[in-house]
Order: sequence, then structure tokens, then C-alpha cells
Amino acid sequence: MAQAGDIITPTPLSGFPEFLPDAQLQFNRCADIVRHHFEQFGAVPLETPAFEKKQILSSKGGDDKQIYSVARLAYEGTDKEQTDYALRFDQTVPLARYVAQHYSELSFPFRRYQMQDVWRGERAQAGRFRQFRQADIDVIGDGSLSLHVDAEIPAIICGIFKDMGIGDFLIRVNNRRLLEGVLASLGIPGDAVEAVLRTIDKLEKVGPDKVYDELVKKFNVSEASATKLLELSEVHGTIDTATPFIQALDANQDLEQGLEELTNVCRAANDLGVPADSFEVDLSIARGLGYYTGTVYETALVDHPAVGSICSGGRYENLASKFTNRKLPGVGISIGLTRLVSRLLDAEILPRGPATPAKVLVTTMVPEQMSRYLALASTLRSNGIATEVYFEPRRIGDQLKFAGKKGFPYVVIGGPSELETGTWQLKDFASGEQKELSAESIVEELKHSG
Amino acid sequence: MAQAGDIITPTPLSGFPEFLPDAQLQFNRCADIVRHHFEQFGAVPLETPAFEKKQILSSKGGDDKQIYSVARLAYEGTDKEQTDYALRFDQTVPLARYVAQHYSELSFPFRRYQMQDVWRGERAQAGRFRQFRQADIDVIGDGSLSLHVDAEIPAIICGIFKDMGIGDFLIRVNNRRLLEGVLASLGIPGDAVEAVLRTIDKLEKVGPDKVYDELVKKFNVSEASATKLLELSEVHGTIDTATPFIQALDANQDLEQGLEELTNVCRAANDLGVPADSFEVDLSIARGLGYYTGTVYETALVDHPAVGSICSGGRYENLASKFTNRKLPGVGISIGLTRLVSRLLDAEILPRGPATPAKVLVTTMVPEQMSRYLALASTLRSNGIATEVYFEPRRIGDQLKFAGKKGFPYVVIGGPSELETGTWQLKDFASGEQKELSAESIVEELKHSG
Repeated sequence: MAQAGDIITPTPLSGFPEFLPDAQLQFNRCADIVRHHFEQFGAVPLETPAFEKKQILSSKGGDDKQIYSVARLAYEGTDKEQTDYALRFDQTVPLARYVAQHYSELSFPFRRYQMQDVWRGERAQAGRFRQFRQADIDVIGDGSLSLHVDAEIPAIICGIFKDMGIGDFLIRVNNRRLLEGVLASLGIPGDAVEAVLRTIDKLEKVGPDKVYDELVKKFNVSEASATKLLELSEVHGTIDTATPFIQALDANQDLEQGLEELTNVCRAANDLGVPADSFEVDLSIARGLGYYTGTVYETALVDHPAVGSICSGGRYENLASKFTNRKLPGVGISIGLTRLVSRLLDAEILPRGPATPAKVLVTTMVPEQMSRYLALASTLRSNGIATEVYFEPRRIGDQLKFAGKKGFPYVVIGGPSELETGTWQLKDFASGEQKELSAESIVEELKHSG
Repeated sequence: MAQAGDIITPTPLSGFPEFLPDAQLQFNRCADIVRHHFEQFGAVPLETPAFEKKQILSSKGGDDKQIYSVARLAYEGTDKEQTDYALRFDQTVPLARYVAQHYSELSFPFRRYQMQDVWRGERAQAGRFRQFRQADIDVIGDGSLSLHVDAEIPAIICGIFKDMGIGDFLIRVNNRRLLEGVLASLGIPGDAVEAVLRTIDKLEKVGPDKVYDELVKKFNVSEASATKLLELSEVHGTIDTATPFIQALDANQDLEQGLEELTNVCRAANDLGVPADSFEVDLSIARGLGYYTGTVYETALVDHPAVGSICSGGRYENLASKFTNRKLPGVGISIGLTRLVSRLLDAEILPRGPATPAKVLVTTMVPEQMSRYLALASTLRSNGIATEVYFEPRRIGDQLKFAGKKGFPYVVIGGPSELETGTWQLKDFASGEQKELSAESIVEELKHSG
């Protein structure tokens, strides 16, 4: 045991975000919005244990060096469990494991969302988190999955970012099969496709000249094809804008099928009310992971490009080939919620709001009459108004200072004269306005305010 | 990489609960209720990293053998971080660390709730979890904290368990100072107090005879005092029932102060509307942890005693003596949410509800008219009605089977004739009733249903 005076001064853990109350409340507000829209489309919540067996996690998209393993501290046995576990580094591997393990108990298409923390042993540096919340939605088919689901994804994204109130955003959509058809049409051999797509992915970061150089010098793409590829990468707009550019190329099966898929997704997204100014086809979106096989998505804020990608994902052919022989195609997106909210707060795109979920602080001035204050608080709460009571015997000025610091929208004050007449002073903290009201009138006032 | 056909068959991890969708939805419903009531009393959400430095976690109430340490898998450096971290085993140590670390940025009294997972390397056995969600609320004062906060705790508990709809419950309350006064009054020496209180704690489990034996033989309590102690342990009811038993004892300062505290807490709980049939004084509640110094709480279900304690806590003198010299008294309770919901589901006290958060499934019969189905779904969602669309080209019978298995309350069916007349069939799955309605009428119907 620590001796008296033997104090350990805690310090922050690098890479492990910890919010103060005002920021945590904003984080939770954003998380609630995401959850609401995921559920609006029928996705069920899924939570998996933080621990997975190491053999489940390793060599499947994860960089093993970044995986944290767990072991019991001061454990004296020889239990195999001692060294068997590691912490999840994403939510895709646990989803694949879950679907394979519970296959017979689930209904397909299986729509699930998952909003849990993941852990990655990243090098400590600004903006890199070692623990962060991801918000993922995926729809998994059994054998096949309708392309219409691909159109629901932008509708979900739209709902989320509109409700967050973080300004204009643009969802850019493309199709991996279409891209592969384009590359084939330009004479780029199949075994170079992955590498070429990863190069195109860097376009925004390194610029067209470097990409051109790399294509020509590193991957032996002809100068004409490299020029054409960069030209196509600049194509963005409606599907009707993009189609002629594709149709001008030498046709092949991937090209035709990819264009048809992309066209259908755009049409269905429109049917689902996705507004044209938040959604466009962009032939430069490659999502260079071998994982994706069809529709791919990238989303960014229009007025705050420095925030970077706020949401991305796509269609994949097979979720769980490591865990089952069944073919389980899916489509999904991921929002890096911790990173997103941190950046939005830092850039003041999201305001730091009150440091309390309560709408009103009931101050107390006459300790002998505490039952009156308690009864008022109960009345407010039974009307759904979140209420804190300040019980400590401090001067009213100090109590108001507390209310101001935490950002309560309203304060109720009841001194001896109010208690005698059975009324209360309701102070609107934003306007400074103060009214003498009955408990019932306070309920009415607060119920109908903001 | 795994070779094709090289399948790993996933198996459950012992001690790590993983719910199917219907159970997860019930879990989330319960968690939302808890969160709502915590916020109704002005508590702010707090989330701390899963990792803490080992020196923060060890030797502070935690059994070191149960603590999981973390290390980077396949890490090749010599970084000290490699061996520095362990996973939190409760939320009290992280709270103490947080309050000490962020003291100057917080407002006191600091009301916070925390609903995160904790990890304990328990031996694997039925009902023992190695990862579980706790729901804790604590109010921390700076130097002192009003006793009225102690009365808010039962009001919060009442709100939560009433909304969960899990039958009658009883919050039993006592006061540690009062108990210590009782022991002093019966001539039990100060250094035996902890051990005697731990013995009394076992009363319900082992019965009065064993407790009597232990008191007399192990702790040298006189036979008269042991008899008196067991007699007092049977006292329960209102504060007015309990008071004469206390007043009949030889007075001392702890006895008097403890009784006064308990009386005030009961009175204020009554002012806050805590119903008398859910709340009683019970002189047998000891909560034998040295940690508690005042009010103590235990809550159980009246009709399901086998479920055990569903919530407990109390008042403590000093939250963070390991991390700061400031005196930070507090009062709080903890609900073992994972354990509680698991038991409630197993005992069928909570029903297994639908395996979907959506209210309605829109089935699809005419693929060429998919835009009509999508438009209907959008209309429903824009009216706040969570809606899933079944896109796969299956027979309507299969689609209805899917709806039945997942438990959608409603299904919409639109065949060629409905699409022609612009109406839909709305099927109420519970009653079997089916109506032909316009989209607008479906919105009205579903908005006003359960």
C-alpha cells in the first residue's frame, strides 16, 4: 500500500485520448447520431470482446507489430490462457470471426453496426491514437448481396453528417471493377493492377507529376496510357458526366459490368434522396486495398479539407475466408470517431458546449428548507428535464459561478422571499433574463426551450 | 497468410460474453435507461483509456493476480512502453486518477458516470466474467460533500429499475459510522471492527448460527454482545422502526452521528419521491470494505432473490489519496450491467425481444420498380420510423420468414397490383392483421403504434 504522503502524480498516456466533460459530451452526441442513423436502416448493434485469440488476429490485414497482446500480471500458473490473447486492432476481423462462429443463429443479409474501441501500437505522434473508437456498419450477404445495399451507404452517411452540423461534405464514389476494366483497356497487365491503383490513391497527396513518373518508370505503363489514366482521374461529377469517358475506352467485361454497377448505385442513391450536391462519381477513388472488389466510398468536408477523410469503405467479395468456406460478400463503411471528433473540436468546427448534460441547476439558499428544493428538482425531472441541485453551503454568487463555468442553460434561485411566496427565480444564463415563476411555469418554460 | 481451405474454426472465449442481436438490443436498452437516469441528475459521462500505467493500478484495492498487462506482440524495440501498461479492472481507480490529474479543469462537486468494460483475470466458471460492463455513478466533493447527495442515489436507482421493468426491487440502506458506533457500544474493540463487519456481511449467505459462532470464537465477542448484534441485524423497515433500537444502546459519538446521517438521508430520499416500498433501512448491511465510511447501499429484486445484488455502493471519505493530498470525499454506486442483463435474460425476467431495431421490413416483389420501394423506405425514415428493405430476389414467403425470425413488428408488401394502385399492404406481425394503405397512412399508423 502507498504510505501517506507517498503520492503518485498521474500523467497523460501518449496516444490515449481522454476528454474533459464538455468534449466527451460532444463525442457522445456525435456517437448517438451515428448510432441513430445506423439503426434507421435496420442494423443491429454488435459488441465483441476486446480480446481475441492471437491466431484469429494475426496475419489478416493487421500489422502484427501493432497488435497488443495481453497476459495476467503476477500470474503464477502455467495456464495456456496466459499467452493466448491479444486486443482487437479493428472491427472487421471480429465481425468475420463472429459471423463465421454464429452463422447458424444469424439472419442474412446480416446488417450490423459496431462502435467500440480498437488498439494499435502506433508510434506516439500528434494525431496518432493507440486507442480509438471506430463506428462501422456492414451488411453481409449469404452467397450474394444486392447492389441496392451499396446505395444505402451514401444515404446513411448523408444522414449522419447532416445531423452532426459540421458543414458541407462530399461523398465520392467509384467502382473497383470499373477501374480494373479501365486499366485492362489501357493495356496495363493484371499483375500490376494493385500497385497501379495504390499509386493512383496517392494522387491527392503527391500530385499528378509524381504519379505519372511512378506509373511510367516503376510500372512500365506507356506514356499514352499514363496520360489517359491521369486524365480519367480528373473526371468527377454525376454518373452522366462520367459515362462518356468510360464509353470512349475499348470495352471489356469488367469495364461494362463496373459501369453498370456504378450507374445502378448512383440511380438508387438518388431514389433514396441522397442530394446531388453531397454525392459524386470520382474516377480517382481507388481504395488501393485488395480487399475491395466493387463500389468504393470516400467522404470529406468541403470547407475543411485539412480534416481529411471522415469516412470510407466499400464492397468486398468475401468477409470471412479465414474462418469459413462460405462465400459472404459485404459492403460497409467505417468512421474513425475519435479522430473525427478530436479534429472537429481542435478546428472549432464543433463547438465546445456545456460541461453538463443537465438543463438547469437548482441553487440552494435556505438549508432548513432543503425539502422544497428537492421537491422542485423531482418535479422537473419527472417532466424529463435533467436537473442538478447544488447542495454545498456556498454563497449564491459562488453557486452562480459554478453554473456559469459548467454552462447550465438555466439556473433556479429560491431565497427566503421566494420560498415564502412559493415562487422561484428562473435565470436564462445566455440572455441574462430572470423571471419569477411557479414550479409549473418553470416546467412549461424549460420543456419548450431549445 | 492463411491458404485457401486453411480454415480456423472460431470458438467462444470462456468468460468473455458475446451476445446475439436480440440480447445485445436488450443490453443496450438497459444501458440507455441507466445513462438517462444518471444524466437526469446532472452526471457527466466519463471515458478513460482501457490502459493505465501499472503503478496506477497495482496495490489499490485490486488483486494484482487478476490484472491483465498488455505488451506489443512481435515488438522488436526496447521501448519502456512495452511493459508499462495494464488494463483497468474497475472504474474507481481510473476515476481517482482522472480527478487528481484534471483537478484544476473540473468543477466540484464533480458528478460523473462511467459505463465501460473492465477486465479481470478470474478463473473461468459459470457466471464469472473476465470482461464486463460496469455502470458507475459517483459524486466527488472538494474537501466536503453534502449528505443530500447520499439521498439522490436511491432516487437514481429507483428510476433505473422502474424503467427496466424487472419487477419489484428493494434498496436497503445503512450507515457505516452508525455500525461502528453500535460495535463500540457493545464493547467490541476498534481493531476488530473491520473483521466483525465482514462477518456480518456474510449473514445472508451463511446464516445467523455460523455468524454467532464466528463472532464469539474467532473475535472474542461476548455472548451477550453477539446475541445483541444478531438481533440488531434483523432490524429493517423505516428509519422510525430502526431508531428505537439504536437509541436503546449506550450512546457514543459515532452512534449519534451515524443515526443522524441515516435519518437525514432517509428524509431527503422521501422528499425526492423514493417510494417507501422500494426503500428501507436495514441494520445488517455492512459492506465490509474499509473503503466505505458513511451511507451504504445494497439493492436486490424482491421476487428473484437468486439474481443477487443488482447494485451497491456507498459513501467514502477520500477518493484519491494515492494520487493527491487533497481530501476528495464521494458517494456512488455501481451496477454490474453485463452480469445483471445476462442473469435477467437467463431467468427470463427480461424477454428476448426482436433481433432488429427496425419497426418495419419493406419486402420487394417487383425488382424493376425498386425505386418505389426505396422511396417508401425514405419516407418512413424521414418520419423517424426505422426501416429495413429486403433487396434479395427471394420469394415473398421467404422474405416473410426472414421478417418473422428477426421479429419485425410490421411488414410492408407491395406486389404488382399494389404498385399499380399506389397502395401498400401493411401487415401487423403480432396480430396477423393486414391493411391496404397509402404511404402516408402507413406513416401515421406506425408513428402512433407502440
